[in-house]
Amino acid sequence: MKKIMNDPKDFVDEVMVGIETAYGDRVHLLDGDTRILVSSYPKKRGKVGIVTAGGSGHLPVFLGYVGSGLLDGCAVGNVFASPSAKKMAAMIKACDDGNGVLCLYGNYGGDKMNFAMACEVVEMDDIETMSVLVTDDVASSPKETASKRRGVAGMVYAFKIAGAAAEQMMTLNQVAEVTTKAIANIRTMGVALSPCIVPEVGKPTFTIEDDELELGMGIHGERGIEVCKMMSANEIADYLFDRIVADLILEKGDEVSVMVNGLGATPLEEQILVYSRVASRLKKQGIAVYMPHIGEFATSMEMAGLSVTILKLDAQLKGLLRMPASSPFYTSENK
Amino acid sequence: MKKIMNDPKDFVDEVMVGIETAYGDRVHLLDGDTRILVSSYPKKRGKVGIVTAGGSGHLPVFLGYVGSGLLDGCAVGNVFASPSAKKMAAMIKACDDGNGVLCLYGNYGGDKMNFAMACEVVEMDDIETMSVLVTDDVASSPKETASKRRGVAGMVYAFKIAGAAAEQMMTLNQVAEVTTKAIANIRTMGVALSPCIVPEVGKPTFTIEDDELELGMGIHGERGIEVCKMMSANEIADYLFDRIVADLILEKGDEVSVMVNGLGATPLEEQILVYSRVASRLKKQGIAVYMPHIGEFATSMEMAGLSVTILKLDAQLKGLLRMPASSPFYTSENK
Repeated sequence: MKKIMNDPKDFVDEVMVGIETAYGDRVHLLDGDTRILVSSYPKKRGKVGIVTAGGSGHLPVFLGYVGSGLLDGCAVGNVFASPSAKKMAAMIKACDDGNGVLCLYGNYGGDKMNFAMACEVVEMDDIETMSVLVTDDVASSPKETASKRRGVAGMVYAFKIAGAAAEQMMTLNQVAEVTTKAIANIRTMGVALSPCIVPEVGKPTFTIEDDELELGMGIHGERGIEVCKMMSANEIADYLFDRIVADLILEKGDEVSVMVNGLGATPLEEQILVYSRVASRLKKQGIAVYMPHIGEFATSMEMAGLSVTILKLDAQLKGLLRMPASSPFYTSENK
Repeated sequence: MKKIMNDPKDFVDEVMVGIETAYGDRVHLLDGDTRILVSSYPKKRGKVGIVTAGGSGHLPVFLGYVGSGLLDGCAVGNVFASPSAKKMAAMIKACDDGNGVLCLYGNYGGDKMNFAMACEVVEMDDIETMSVLVTDDVASSPKETASKRRGVAGMVYAFKIAGAAAEQMMTLNQVAEVTTKAIANIRTMGVALSPCIVPEVGKPTFTIEDDELELGMGIHGERGIEVCKMMSANEIADYLFDRIVADLILEKGDEVSVMVNGLGATPLEEQILVYSRVASRLKKQGIAVYMPHIGEFATSMEMAGLSVTILKLDAQLKGLLRMPASSPFYTSENK
């Protein structure tokens, strides 16, 4: 096992302290709690709070999106494990400014259960919450049972849209509504080329041969649709694109944003090749791309592979996507 | 070999086309040349041009820093190979606006030779050039022969300082002078945990055992100082920090910027652990950190490992570092 770390059981706490050490002018640990990060950016009074939570090991997801025009707070658990309901409740309280909090997170059992408990707890303090689940991974369940799908890289678009909506002083209901609409327009699918190593486990999460890739794998190493022989960049892009557009109806004249997300060990050069092919497929269909995102947005530590996400835009979603946003790990300038 | 690519011999050209496809609103290929990228950002009239060149395979270095307040142009060769003098000359010409061009690049034989020829060529067109070499890698040569050192991640700070100086309408001489001062204040050292694969070669650049790391390795896999057993994050940070401060005199009350640069496959979490330790060592010595940079700034494709860079600031360098800058791959907001 070759990971740059100290005692594996301190991994998450040390990362959290490191984030505050580096970016303490913009984000901070809530009352010094090494599992809860909240924004220190100036905030409009009465703005709806946007929070998320989930397992560690996906940076920049989730902590990297605590900032301005994005998330107000984030609770994390151990690597790939949900944080407790207690931590979530403390975070929700800290992020409420009187007009409620949107809990926006990936569709995973532990996170759902704990968020449900946390929301009950804060209700006793008269804090209103709504929950919206991100379910963008087309590989994880067929279209007929789309609500069972996992949340993966598309959640970054969801954070961006929700954060911008709150920044525009929409009500909690309105923020939840537009975020739900965005998620209905987001699809992701990924491939994995190599596993990652969970610090406290110390061995690879799965095995894969040197000439193989796994199609549709989840960001925690959940099994995909099939294992096949290695394909070219164009073949991978085509495969992912075809699966996504079989699920998300796109028509000539539509506008989309495209994210090619590196899972950790895949070079930016290779991500760009895949983006290029996806963009050319879209162009052939008369579909324009707005604000492409290419890079590492939601990783599985050192896993090699990437995912493609398409967000279908309408005027409202485009307006929210283009609003400025800033965090230590993500910057979007108004263009 | 598992790389996401098409025909290996098309790798660089396809990446260049991909960059223009994604970010054609901000950068473009010079006359469609797939080895020369220039900025399309609005530019002040008569600004000194800042250009670089080098081998491909290091994204975001070099292409990712073509933008506003950064580089005006960049020529690239094949992976880890210098571009031709002809390409460099075409780029210099395109980036001259009457007041000369600074050629700012890493201290490698091929790049030096080709830039020297390119500068002679453009002189015939009455274009004034000056050259400044980045020599920040303390592992590559002892202090007595510091001018022989290689340029590595510290070149990103050099690009930022030079770009800001040009933006302030300094003359070519002034830009070269302040950039030279910055480089004299920059030191980097790195460790590698795993090799990368050059597309047209198809096999790892070097071998290293599963329980070893190489100290002082270069970003093309150049041999380092020693191979040793795997160390903890704190031990790695201490080792790199000690080597850097043995070479760069820091005193209580000094201010520095620190970059922890992932070489490709090393997770952001692990980079943050190393940053945290370096920051704590600096704090103990009464040295403040300004604008930390943590992430992938200069990679070796899928190589695992990281480097630490320290830039010692004075009032002028701090002022230039904090000026806004923007490219498709790097954003710095004025704070």
